[in-house]
Amino acid sequence: MKFNNRNVYISEKAKIGKNVRIGDNTVIYDNVIIGDNSIICNDCVIGEPVNDYYFTSSYENPETVLKEGAFIRSHSIIYAGSVFGENFSTGHRVTIREHSKFGNNCRIGTVSDIQGYVEFGNNCWLHSNVHIGQQSKIGNFVFIYPYAVFTNDPTPPSDTCIGPTVGDFSQIAVGTVLLPAAEIGKHCLVGAQSLVGGKYDDYSLIIGNPAKKIKDVRELKSRNTDKSHYPWPYSFSRNMPWEHEGFENWKLKNGYEND
Amino acid sequence: MKFNNRNVYISEKAKIGKNVRIGDNTVIYDNVIIGDNSIICNDCVIGEPVNDYYFTSSYENPETVLKEGAFIRSHSIIYAGSVFGENFSTGHRVTIREHSKFGNNCRIGTVSDIQGYVEFGNNCWLHSNVHIGQQSKIGNFVFIYPYAVFTNDPTPPSDTCIGPTVGDFSQIAVGTVLLPAAEIGKHCLVGAQSLVGGKYDDYSLIIGNPAKKIKDVRELKSRNTDKSHYPWPYSFSRNMPWEHEGFENWKLKNGYEND
Amino acid sequence: MKFNNRNVYISEKAKIGKNVRIGDNTVIYDNVIIGDNSIICNDCVIGEPVNDYYFTSSYENPETVLKEGAFIRSHSIIYAGSVFGENFSTGHRVTIREHSKFGNNCRIGTVSDIQGYVEFGNNCWLHSNVHIGQQSKIGNFVFIYPYAVFTNDPTPPSDTCIGPTVGDFSQIAVGTVLLPAAEIGKHCLVGAQSLVGGKYDDYSLIIGNPAKKIKDVRELKSRNTDKSHYPWPYSFSRNMPWEHEGFENWKLKNGYEND
Repeated sequence: MKFNNRNVYISEKAKIGKNVRIGDNTVIYDNVIIGDNSIICNDCVIGEPVNDYYFTSSYENPETVLKEGAFIRSHSIIYAGSVFGENFSTGHRVTIREHSKFGNNCRIGTVSDIQGYVEFGNNCWLHSNVHIGQQSKIGNFVFIYPYAVFTNDPTPPSDTCIGPTVGDFSQIAVGTVLLPAAEIGKHCLVGAQSLVGGKYDDYSLIIGNPAKKIKDVRELKSRNTDKSHYPWPYSFSRNMPWEHEGFENWKLKNGYEND
Repeated sequence: MKFNNRNVYISEKAKIGKNVRIGDNTVIYDNVIIGDNSIICNDCVIGEPVNDYYFTSSYENPETVLKEGAFIRSHSIIYAGSVFGENFSTGHRVTIREHSKFGNNCRIGTVSDIQGYVEFGNNCWLHSNVHIGQQSKIGNFVFIYPYAVFTNDPTPPSDTCIGPTVGDFSQIAVGTVLLPAAEIGKHCLVGAQSLVGGKYDDYSLIIGNPAKKIKDVRELKSRNTDKSHYPWPYSFSRNMPWEHEGFENWKLKNGYEND
Repeated sequence: MKFNNRNVYISEKAKIGKNVRIGDNTVIYDNVIIGDNSIICNDCVIGEPVNDYYFTSSYENPETVLKEGAFIRSHSIIYAGSVFGENFSTGHRVTIREHSKFGNNCRIGTVSDIQGYVEFGNNCWLHSNVHIGQQSKIGNFVFIYPYAVFTNDPTPPSDTCIGPTVGDFSQIAVGTVLLPAAEIGKHCLVGAQSLVGGKYDDYSLIIGNPAKKIKDVRELKSRNTDKSHYPWPYSFSRNMPWEHEGFENWKLKNGYEND
């Protein structure tokens, strides 16, 4: 239903891999490279030119790379000058600005807004309506839930820009604000609607406005069992690379011995 | 200005009622049924295929039903497999996922994001930028204000999904997060930017982070008069079915004797 | 790349200035006036008809004025009946409803939602995903950060609509809710995720849920120096009209002697 080649425009300077489907009304601008077996749905813009384009006659669009297996849902806008690892996927109406770097297997939910100049590791999942300010630096297997906001200006407005950092496996729940330069360790859980500044150790449960470390996440009991759900990779494996062998085996083979 | 039949695509497998207007650049996919006297504005997608479509050659789009009098504003995306009662209306850029069920006379504001597998009664009004997670269950005459978020995973990430429930006539103010499995009774008022878990009786005024029941809404005085504005159906009737006869008469005829 | 005149529709009743570029798939409706040297990117709707259009055969689109130097990024929807000063710019997917009034040099970020019947002075910058309810009144040089929400109904739902007011040079940080009729003075700083009702003097630092005045912003020290960053116009001048001469000189010439 979606791939009828109606009103599709692909730049002659774009490189499209094998077995790539491109939806109706989609535009692919100059110097976009799309890997094999990708799906770009309808009404998308890939390689959106950066600001200079409008004012510089010699403008050349920076290279945009979507590696193999990308799946971009409709109405998304991806700026030129970003690099996305394998199997990158988005919901609808996502906006991703220039100089963003994503590892493999990342997912970005509907209406999320990535401001550019950010760095994500592998297997990060951002749900709907997440806002990531510039200079944020996020590890691997970090999940961020709706309406979380990552900020970067400690004294607005100013010319200072210091984004938050988040360690591997940490979870940032809905409606949370990370203040500029916040440092969240590995395996942390930041509770819903928290206002978080400062630096937190690995395994912290961080909650409140203003947020504090309440306890170690390993002490949190599950509702249904007497065991802790955290560190979550031992309890949750759907679509994770340890789905079949378990986290314990996987981590030893993959450089996460200490997690 | 909007209905020039430019760049409109309607599946041969869609059923369009009488006196339906369809805006430019809109797409209606397979097995969509649109009731009489409906308006689907420009740049909409109705019957957006669910995920299997991309990977299953035998895919058949599930039925999508918009009953009589629908009014879908531009750039909205409605997935296949949902059912909408009469006079359903949306703002712009709304996203509604599959297996959503809405009663009659519901309205969804601009950029709202309904994640699917939800159930709404009649006459619910969602303002702009509301996020409703899966498995939420909402009664009749519930109003939800901008940036409210309904969540469903108590220990993220997990395979548990328990949405909130909200009783008839309750109001969920701006920026509020309902935690998984929260139960809000009838005629409650949840104040702005509250973080709400647990179970609340009918007529509760619920406020804070974390939220608590502060008092009975019937004790709340109006700013301008010495009377309480709540239960609000006695004070507010614009576009409500009791607009002409008053809530007292209406409720006796319509099965709300106890409200 | 964007200006190929593909699928562009411009009403014969629109007036387009000199040196205006209009992107592919954009629609300009009746009675829109666009000033010289403007850029309207792709997939925009300018002069979106108000509600009566759908139900009144004699409907005439109200006048929409974008003065010289407008720069509207893609997928934005601007309703008919609003007036925008010089150099007005937007991000992507902005929605601006009717009867909005903006001064010169204002900027509105991606996905922001202006509900109409609002008034902004000059040089206001709204970042991504700001929601401004009807009847809000904002001064000059006011910056509003992502996910801030301006509300207007003190007892929802009701027929009362009293928006917040914000004085010149004030800053409203991320995730903040301004309650109906809130009055923020000049040069205030409202901290992230605050819930703000009531009236605040000039130079207030306002923080918390519920928010309180914590101190005078002039007492706030910068992280890096021992001096206060506020009033910020003395410390920040990028793209401000005092960029070259400094705030002290500029203010004396421009009617801000007391700031």
